[in-house]
Amino acid sequence: MNIRTPEPRDPNFEARVRDSFARQRMMHLLGAELTTVLPGQIEIILPFRSDLTQQHGYLHAAAVAAIADSACGYAALTLMESAQEVLSVEFKVNLLAPAVGERFVAVGRVLRSGRTLSVCVADVHAVQSGSGKLIAAMQATMIATLPNHLTG
Amino acid sequence: MNIRTPEPRDPNFEARVRDSFARQRMMHLLGAELTTVLPGQIEIILPFRSDLTQQHGYLHAAAVAAIADSACGYAALTLMESAQEVLSVEFKVNLLAPAVGERFVAVGRVLRSGRTLSVCVADVHAVQSGSGKLIAAMQATMIATLPNHLTG
Amino acid sequence: MNIRTPEPRDPNFEARVRDSFARQRMMHLLGAELTTVLPGQIEIILPFRSDLTQQHGYLHAAAVAAIADSACGYAALTLMESAQEVLSVEFKVNLLAPAVGERFVAVGRVLRSGRTLSVCVADVHAVQSGSGKLIAAMQATMIATLPNHLTG
Amino acid sequence: MNIRTPEPRDPNFEARVRDSFARQRMMHLLGAELTTVLPGQIEIILPFRSDLTQQHGYLHAAAVAAIADSACGYAALTLMESAQEVLSVEFKVNLLAPAVGERFVAVGRVLRSGRTLSVCVADVHAVQSGSGKLIAAMQATMIATLPNHLTG
Repeated sequence: MNIRTPEPRDPNFEARVRDSFARQRMMHLLGAELTTVLPGQIEIILPFRSDLTQQHGYLHAAAVAAIADSACGYAALTLMESAQEVLSVEFKVNLLAPAVGERFVAVGRVLRSGRTLSVCVADVHAVQSGSGKLIAAMQATMIATLPNHLTG
Repeated sequence: MNIRTPEPRDPNFEARVRDSFARQRMMHLLGAELTTVLPGQIEIILPFRSDLTQQHGYLHAAAVAAIADSACGYAALTLMESAQEVLSVEFKVNLLAPAVGERFVAVGRVLRSGRTLSVCVADVHAVQSGSGKLIAAMQATMIATLPNHLTG
Repeated sequence: MNIRTPEPRDPNFEARVRDSFARQRMMHLLGAELTTVLPGQIEIILPFRSDLTQQHGYLHAAAVAAIADSACGYAALTLMESAQEVLSVEFKVNLLAPAVGERFVAVGRVLRSGRTLSVCVADVHAVQSGSGKLIAAMQATMIATLPNHLTG
Repeated sequence: MNIRTPEPRDPNFEARVRDSFARQRMMHLLGAELTTVLPGQIEIILPFRSDLTQQHGYLHAAAVAAIADSACGYAALTLMESAQEVLSVEFKVNLLAPAVGERFVAVGRVLRSGRTLSVCVADVHAVQSGSGKLIAAMQATMIATLPNHLTG
């Protein structure tokens, strides 16, 4: 994908994203950390924890999807107006390999930032002994909302 | 969708599904309960909990997706051979309304149960004061695996 | 899915849908026919033609997706305001079985009709010697636009 | 996405892909041309034609999806065994901007090439007066089949 470096509409985008992420109690429950916040790009890291597993002891697909979805949503939010918030309209994730690793790194990027809708992609790598492996790819639609108009 | 009542290949399907679900530590972390197990159909209930929320205080999309994905996967497993296990290949979820409710009910159903791949749908309703509202719809692909061959 | 019978916002919805469909030259090229137009539900029929095939002689997945996408889009349009038009935001289709048949019947239905976004599903059956088989399922997001504001 | 240059299992992959594409009569009907065939990567070009349009005169989403799906499928096929053929399991496409242009270029790439399943992405650019614009992104699952076992 040829993604140009996008221009944020709100110079205060990083603080706004970090504040919103801090209010996502689900991310806290999972132990996910927001690392990089750039215009149109977000990185979230999830350390492995045995209570996040599925029946084979791998990281649960829902935990993989959770950090990919948040990476997409916050990537979209970096390019929105200062008064806007972000909600997931839909996302689709392909699980490419078993989620085995010490930690999982989701990078979300904006393909298109519109007035109302943004389209984002995220990939998730499992990191083990310093080397990463692509385990999931997401493609998602996000919507910009005002605080008191939460649905499209 | 015209879904015929399917015939399970393994008469012991219910015990097998309940055993696998019990080993999904992520479902335990979220507080999800496996209620109905029928051939080709699964119901999972998730009571609201404030540590499962996103930034507006609603249930996080990742929690919604988690129970829908599990409902799809276990619906597929009810129709698989006794030696087979199930993994998510991909899923896509549309979030139709804010996830506001006392509890959330995901029902997964099998559209097609093949030798290798199964295609499933799930809907998720939010229940508040006894009345339900459709808040999410998922369409997913599952793969049957043998315990020592975990990827397609 | 528990789909209530929806109320059209524009009593003239059927003429509007049929007029728009008639202007889709791609549907004409494929030979697709718009049959049923109900509030929130559309049926489109595509007779088999050998120039619509893929490498094995079955109907091409793109032709299957074409009628499912149109069925979703026009199902959404039946419930929109009279001045609004419809565009596809995204769609996802699972191909359940080879598309073998004399004709293919796509039925699209609205799960949610919002001010801006609609979420729809469609199934496609192959009909052979009078009996139908489910060959594809789609889940899609549509957007209401005004004639001179064509993107969200 | 960090995509390594993949190794084709069949040195004759290009002839096999070009032969299969030539048998897709739907691609011929649309006027699509297979240009680049590399290991794990395919380019397909579709010149604009007024009989491929939707109701606003833009290229129909189904035509956009058709070339993206074929680009994904043939990208997967370049890495399969010589006796294998390819079928679409599912695909999801986001339409990012109106499909306005003189021609449309779909590039499909393989994210993961497994024994049975491959996961691919495609982007589609509209080209007008020499400059391109990203108008669609697809994420898809393909399955390797033997000529007489056409479903998973």
